[in-house]
Amino acid sequence: MTNSILIKGVALDERCQDVLIVDNVIEKIGDSIVFEAHKVIDGSGKTLIPGFVNMHTHAAMTLMRGIGEDMHLKEWLYKKIWPIEKKLDDELVYWGTKLAALEMIKSGTTCFNDQYWNLDAAVKASAEMGIRSVQPFVILDLGDKSKWSKIKEECYSAWERSKLWGPRNRFAIGIHSPYSVSEEMLVWGTNFARERGLLVHIHVSETEGENRDSVDLHGVSPTKYLDRVGVLGPDIIAAHCLWMDDEDIEIFSKRDVKVVHNINSNLKIASGYRFRYNEFRDAGVTVTLGTDGCASSNNLDMIETMKTTALVQKAWREDPTAMPLDELLNLATKNGGLALGINCGEVKEGYLADLSIIDTNSIAFTPNINFKANLVYSANSSCVDTVICDGKVLMEGRRVDGEREILDNVNRLYKKLL
Amino acid sequence: MTNSILIKGVALDERCQDVLIVDNVIEKIGDSIVFEAHKVIDGSGKTLIPGFVNMHTHAAMTLMRGIGEDMHLKEWLYKKIWPIEKKLDDELVYWGTKLAALEMIKSGTTCFNDQYWNLDAAVKASAEMGIRSVQPFVILDLGDKSKWSKIKEECYSAWERSKLWGPRNRFAIGIHSPYSVSEEMLVWGTNFARERGLLVHIHVSETEGENRDSVDLHGVSPTKYLDRVGVLGPDIIAAHCLWMDDEDIEIFSKRDVKVVHNINSNLKIASGYRFRYNEFRDAGVTVTLGTDGCASSNNLDMIETMKTTALVQKAWREDPTAMPLDELLNLATKNGGLALGINCGEVKEGYLADLSIIDTNSIAFTPNINFKANLVYSANSSCVDTVICDGKVLMEGRRVDGEREILDNVNRLYKKLL
Repeated sequence: MTNSILIKGVALDERCQDVLIVDNVIEKIGDSIVFEAHKVIDGSGKTLIPGFVNMHTHAAMTLMRGIGEDMHLKEWLYKKIWPIEKKLDDELVYWGTKLAALEMIKSGTTCFNDQYWNLDAAVKASAEMGIRSVQPFVILDLGDKSKWSKIKEECYSAWERSKLWGPRNRFAIGIHSPYSVSEEMLVWGTNFARERGLLVHIHVSETEGENRDSVDLHGVSPTKYLDRVGVLGPDIIAAHCLWMDDEDIEIFSKRDVKVVHNINSNLKIASGYRFRYNEFRDAGVTVTLGTDGCASSNNLDMIETMKTTALVQKAWREDPTAMPLDELLNLATKNGGLALGINCGEVKEGYLADLSIIDTNSIAFTPNINFKANLVYSANSSCVDTVICDGKVLMEGRRVDGEREILDNVNRLYKKLL
Repeated sequence: MTNSILIKGVALDERCQDVLIVDNVIEKIGDSIVFEAHKVIDGSGKTLIPGFVNMHTHAAMTLMRGIGEDMHLKEWLYKKIWPIEKKLDDELVYWGTKLAALEMIKSGTTCFNDQYWNLDAAVKASAEMGIRSVQPFVILDLGDKSKWSKIKEECYSAWERSKLWGPRNRFAIGIHSPYSVSEEMLVWGTNFARERGLLVHIHVSETEGENRDSVDLHGVSPTKYLDRVGVLGPDIIAAHCLWMDDEDIEIFSKRDVKVVHNINSNLKIASGYRFRYNEFRDAGVTVTLGTDGCASSNNLDMIETMKTTALVQKAWREDPTAMPLDELLNLATKNGGLALGINCGEVKEGYLADLSIIDTNSIAFTPNINFKANLVYSANSSCVDTVICDGKVLMEGRRVDGEREILDNVNRLYKKLL
C-alpha cells in the first residue's frame, strides 16, 4: 500500500486548490480532488510552495554557531575553525548534521548540498531526518602529494559504501577549491565523478585575494585555470563566484557550470557583495542560493537568504527593480532542482513531493496583498507550518519529531570543540 | 498599591540574576531578591535585554505592506503611495498603527519614533497597545505658501490636544524634509518645537539625487542648508543621512544632531548602502537604528535591522571586524533612549522597565556560545518570548491581547486603499 496525502484548499498560484501526493510524487493538482488519502491536511489560510534547495552548506558547522565573531578571515580560520575541526568525530558530526537538518526543515528547506567531514555520520543523520541531500566526499590536500593515495583510497571506499545509502541521499565529489587542491587531485576528483555520473561541489572565486593568487600562480583567474585543466562542465556546482569577469562568466555559460550565491556569508566575512546575477542570468547560467555553514553565516535560513540576496542586488546595482520576486523564488527552489538534476523545486504534477506549507494567518502576511513580497520581505521562517519531503510529513504545526533530543545532545557535545 | 514584577533567574550580562520592577522602573538587580511581587516571571532558559527603540518609522504604513514591489522610486510614489495616502482616514490609521504596535511588541520593540498622518488616531492606537512612542505633528507643504496658515493652526491645535495624551506618548514636530518643506516652515516648525522643548524628526540626505537638488537650489548639501537656516541642534532626529561628506558629519557632531540609519529601506529602494557609521561614531554623533515604514521595508523588525546593518557595514567597508556586536546592540537600544531623552534602552537600576525576554531554548541559540551573535545573526524575532513596557507585561509566551481583532480589522479595512 502506497502512502498518500491530500492537501485540501491550499493557496497556490493565487487561488485555492487541492493537491494529491501519492508515494513521493505530486500526483494531481485540481479544484476538488476526491480521493481516500491516508492523510488529509487542511490548507485553509495557508499557501503551498516548493521546498527550498540550500545549494551550499557545511551542515555540521551548526556546532560552531557564534564561535568566531567580528574577526578577520585568517585569524578566524587559524585560531578558531581549523583547530576546532581537528577535534571533530563521528558523534559530533552526526548530531551537528541532525541539528542542521532540523533547522532546515523548520525553515522550509527540503534539500541541501553539503560539503563536510565524517561523511557516513552526516549521511546517517540526514537519512534519519528525512531530508533530501547531496553528500560529497571531500578532497582537500593543500598541495601535499603524500596525502593523495590515502584520499583516493578513502574516496573509492566511500563510493562503495554510498551504494547502501537510501534514495534521498546522493553521493558526490567535493573538491574544496582550486587553491587548496593540487591540479592532479582536481583532475582525478573530476574524472572520478564523471566516470560515475556524480556532481562535483567546489568553491570558486570567493575572495578577491584568491583571484590575485591564481593569477600569480597560474597566470589566469580560478575559472580560466579550472577550464584549462578540464574541470568545468555541467556537473560542476561552483559556490560563491563573487569575483568573476565577463570572460569567466562566458566560460561558465559555455560549460554550463552551475553557480551558488551565498550572500549572508559573503557579507559577514567581507568577501564581497557585487555578485553579478544579471550577467550570469543573461548568459544563461543556472544561478542558485545557499546559506554556507553556520560558522560563517550563523543560520541555515533560506527565507533570510532570499531577502538579503534581493536587497543587496537592488542596492549595489542602484536599481530597485533588480532581482524581482519571481526570479528570486526560482533561485531558491526550481534552479536548485535543475542544478542538482533532481525533479524538485516546483509544485507541479509529476514532481517530487518536496513542499512547504506557509501559514499566512499572521502579522507578517497582514494584509496579504502580495504573498511573495510578504514571504521574502516581511515574514521570517517561523511562517513555515508544514514540511513534506519525498512524500513524507517531516513537520506539521511546526513540530518535528526528536527536536528536544537533538538540542540536548548538541548542548552536551559542543563543549568538546571549545 | 503600585505594580511590581519579579523576574527570577534570568540570564543578564552572562550570569543568572533576579530583576525587580516596581511601578514602571527597574528597582533592583541582584543575585537573589526576596520580594512579594504581584507577578513573578520564571527567567530560566531565557535572557533579558532592553526593549528595542525603533527610531524611524511611519507606523500605519503596515496597511500598505507589499503594495508596490520591485518599482522605481518615482513610479512607486506617484502611482502607489501618494494616491493611496489620499484615502487614509482615522479608522485606517488607527488599525494600521495598532498592527504596527502589535508587530513591534512581538519583535521586542518597546518604543518607536513615528512620523505619519491622522495623529490623534495613531496616538490612540499606541496608547491602547501600551507601547512607548514619540508622535510628531507632520509639516509638509511642498513649497505651497497657501498651506502655511492651515498647517500652523493645526499644529497649535494638535499641541493643545497632546496635553491630554498619556505619559508614554510624547508630542513632537515632524518636518518631512528640507526638499519638501519651505524654508519658512522649516524654521517655524523648529522654533515651535524649541519653544516647547520638543524633538524634531526629519528626513535628511536619503538619496544622492536629493543632495544634487540641494546644491542646485541652495548651493550646498541638505545638512549645510539646514545648518545655515538654524535648524540643526540636539533636538533634531535626522533619518537616513546616507549621503554625508566629512563636513556634513562635522556639522552634525558640532550641533549634536541624532542620526537614524534604516538599512533595509535604503537597500530595497536603492537609496544607497555606504552609511558612514564609523565616521559618525568617531565624530561623537549618536547613531540609532530604524525600520522605516512597511511600504518601503515591509516589516518593523529590529532584530533583522541589526543583522542587515552589521552585514552591510562589514561588506562595504571590506572589514569583517566592522560593526562589532556590542556597538550594534547599543544602536538598537541605548542610543535610541539617549536620542529621545528617554530613560530607557539599558537594563540598569533606575531605568524604565522597557524590557524583552528572549527564549534561548531553541535551535537558533544552540549551541549558545555567544548570545549576542545568536540573537543578531542566527535568530529571528520569534525568539522574543515576553515584552514589558513601562512596567506592564504586553506580551507573555508570545501572546498579545487583542491580536486576532487587529488582524481581522486590517484585513477588513485595507481594501479601501486599493
